[in-house]
Amino acid sequence: MSTTATAFDPQTLEGLLTDGGKVLTAPDDLAAYGCDWTRIYDPAPLAVVLPKSTEEVQAIVRYANEQHMALVPSGGRTGLSAGAVAANGEMVVAMDRMNRILDFNANDRLVQCEAGVVTEQLQQYADEQGLYYPVDFASAGSSELGGNIATNAGGIKVIRYGMTRDWVLGLKVVTGAGEILELNNGLEKNNTGYDLRQLFIGGEGTLGFITEATMKLARQPSNLTVMVLGLNDLSNTMDVLQSFRSKLDLTAYEFFSNEAIAHVQAHAEVPRPFETECPYYALLEFEATSEGVMEEAMALFEHCVEQEWVVDGVISQSEGQAEKLWQLRERISESIAPHTPYKNDLSVRISRVPEFLNEIHSVVSKEYPDFEIIWYGHIGDGNLHLNILKPADMEKQEFFKRCETVNDLVFEIVQRYEGSVSAEHGVGMVKKKYLGFTKSAEEIAVMKGIKKVFDPNGIMNPGKLIDSD
Amino acid sequence: MSTTATAFDPQTLEGLLTDGGKVLTAPDDLAAYGCDWTRIYDPAPLAVVLPKSTEEVQAIVRYANEQHMALVPSGGRTGLSAGAVAANGEMVVAMDRMNRILDFNANDRLVQCEAGVVTEQLQQYADEQGLYYPVDFASAGSSELGGNIATNAGGIKVIRYGMTRDWVLGLKVVTGAGEILELNNGLEKNNTGYDLRQLFIGGEGTLGFITEATMKLARQPSNLTVMVLGLNDLSNTMDVLQSFRSKLDLTAYEFFSNEAIAHVQAHAEVPRPFETECPYYALLEFEATSEGVMEEAMALFEHCVEQEWVVDGVISQSEGQAEKLWQLRERISESIAPHTPYKNDLSVRISRVPEFLNEIHSVVSKEYPDFEIIWYGHIGDGNLHLNILKPADMEKQEFFKRCETVNDLVFEIVQRYEGSVSAEHGVGMVKKKYLGFTKSAEEIAVMKGIKKVFDPNGIMNPGKLIDSD
Repeated sequence: MSTTATAFDPQTLEGLLTDGGKVLTAPDDLAAYGCDWTRIYDPAPLAVVLPKSTEEVQAIVRYANEQHMALVPSGGRTGLSAGAVAANGEMVVAMDRMNRILDFNANDRLVQCEAGVVTEQLQQYADEQGLYYPVDFASAGSSELGGNIATNAGGIKVIRYGMTRDWVLGLKVVTGAGEILELNNGLEKNNTGYDLRQLFIGGEGTLGFITEATMKLARQPSNLTVMVLGLNDLSNTMDVLQSFRSKLDLTAYEFFSNEAIAHVQAHAEVPRPFETECPYYALLEFEATSEGVMEEAMALFEHCVEQEWVVDGVISQSEGQAEKLWQLRERISESIAPHTPYKNDLSVRISRVPEFLNEIHSVVSKEYPDFEIIWYGHIGDGNLHLNILKPADMEKQEFFKRCETVNDLVFEIVQRYEGSVSAEHGVGMVKKKYLGFTKSAEEIAVMKGIKKVFDPNGIMNPGKLIDSD
Repeated sequence: MSTTATAFDPQTLEGLLTDGGKVLTAPDDLAAYGCDWTRIYDPAPLAVVLPKSTEEVQAIVRYANEQHMALVPSGGRTGLSAGAVAANGEMVVAMDRMNRILDFNANDRLVQCEAGVVTEQLQQYADEQGLYYPVDFASAGSSELGGNIATNAGGIKVIRYGMTRDWVLGLKVVTGAGEILELNNGLEKNNTGYDLRQLFIGGEGTLGFITEATMKLARQPSNLTVMVLGLNDLSNTMDVLQSFRSKLDLTAYEFFSNEAIAHVQAHAEVPRPFETECPYYALLEFEATSEGVMEEAMALFEHCVEQEWVVDGVISQSEGQAEKLWQLRERISESIAPHTPYKNDLSVRISRVPEFLNEIHSVVSKEYPDFEIIWYGHIGDGNLHLNILKPADMEKQEFFKRCETVNDLVFEIVQRYEGSVSAEHGVGMVKKKYLGFTKSAEEIAVMKGIKKVFDPNGIMNPGKLIDSD
């Protein structure tokens, strides 16, 4: 749809914001609120509106329907798929001022939040209540809950705690048609028809705005203990995973290559886990709730060494050591950032990971022998992050162009393995043209039909995820 | 929609079943396949078709669209809301012959099943692989997986393992429009837009047929240990729950009244848990993985006694004892069955359970002082089963009529507590007219819009869950 920038009058819109919301039109604000962490599209919003309440969001949506104005929801702007970029004269609706924690009940372990609550704020709040919000990832300090839900954020603890989806017990939303819906009311069990909450989770703001969420909290984990293991063969990551999780409830099972560690060491003061250099590393974490659990873990480690799946390993003896070992994994992203990585976020069934990774690696390294490839990811969920680093002497535009040409080869492999072109980062604008490698034409047609039910005039985040017909 | 019974020709339909499916029209078959465990509506299907493959289901759906014929999906026929009853000349499509386990992968812990696999068959299969399918409930010996998914079945382990929804990693469906969709391909992580799988889960067969499902399995629990506790005050169930789950991962937290135990004792050879008679009982279960866990559990028990929340208690010392204690809870339903119970399956937020139950109890016992009321349920999930027993000298029709008149009073309380009129049994025909007590008119309108996207001609299970406009 086309926006009607000429007809827009900030004062009319501001007049609708009776709870103290405001409208920004200064060029710096447009640039800041019009983008996310992708840098492929230039921000060019019409204006930015910062509502203070669900009712204000409803007024904005009704106004936008009248004016045929496109709206882009904006949270912490940490997205990696340009799902919250306003590059075409849209109105940005930023949730930054709706950042209150509204209610908490210890018996229910439920916390009711406005959409602009920052992930880390929720984690800390949970901690103060003696509880735990288990969804965690690199951008937790900036990302906002509404965005996490709209993109069904994953992260480093999915193997035990699932995705954001698993922690949303209630949503308040404003649909693209301007209706306020209260979805699921914080109930654990509610079998009364289609669970519309599930469509807003991962819906990337194309159906409406999430304005409030009722989130479940968990028991705090106790004595989290980390092992880092060195492996010579990628396929052994699966043997190790199966051994450990047959006996222990793992809270993480991550993977990274020796090249990834080298970048972390070059970038930060993080020591190697042990002397032995291995092509691959697995990091696993569990709650060492008793001596018995530690003994079990050590026995499993020894079994893996005996089977020659594991070459060397280290186990944390304190919280501080556990955190240090985690840095080997958590600081990869920032360590490779100066090399302008081209990121792909792929998934397949867990058992297919080694074969899948090898096949993609050989295609990419054959086509682009001059590019460095860094692999890491949430291997316990079948989720791999493929990062292609820009050679220092290559122009950025030229580099991205060449990476895009390799995408078809990569996604053809994803399709053959029945995998996903976006495991956790979402589709947005960046992956939209590749959606057909994961979803059939019939499924995409149904998605378009559902979009029309919630957003008949197509004002909600147009051009993201799917195109209108 | 009206069916066109006169135009129906079994031979034409049979001719479409190229994989060995068959059509039944004998009166006994119509009676057997046309109903579920509710006995409110008389079965009156046009015919019964038993397909053998997804392609046959697709052929049936296409034929039904051409003929304007209503279809009713049928699984194990154990439903309690008449979601699978064919009372209006519909064609029953029964999944009984699609009962194969198709594939299993130990690394993925995934098992691919046809929709007609019986729950217990899946549980046993998982056990043979050294794994665990954790969704369990009284009808597991007859209920089929497709029906479990279509009604998002819950049961006795939800507090730890969630609902059926949490174990479905992939679905193959045939939509009401006759399209085959493969949803999510067994992936743990797949953020590529609206998760249509979630709509078929709990969709009660109104959007299309589930023909295959890829289910996740869990690690087998070890040394499951049961405690039964006696309480004088209902509100203490919440104190006990909070104490225990702050330290232990409970696998169950159930509740029943002294009246419920009395029925179990009258019906079966199940001993009382302990001498002391209490108005309420809580049954909790956990994995006693070490001596430390048992010590923790005993310390928690002592704390609850000191606080005077718990009057008496017993803990299982063996698997056999644990099973015996479970019978106190699991045999309630069969024990009260001879009294023709009128069942309601309600939920609210956990913290509101005591107040909610007391309010409903006082209304029901005031309005119907001659009716016996039996309470039990999955109190750790906020889910209560309210059973009103028929007085021996009252006619069944008269009894149901009087119970229905109390429904409005009960559901008004549910609405005020922002609860659900169907926690786990679904809506079907029985709860359809009460849907508005849990969902707003706007939400129901959206549901109708979604139904039209999948099932434009309204052939899928019409008259269940929602009415067409």
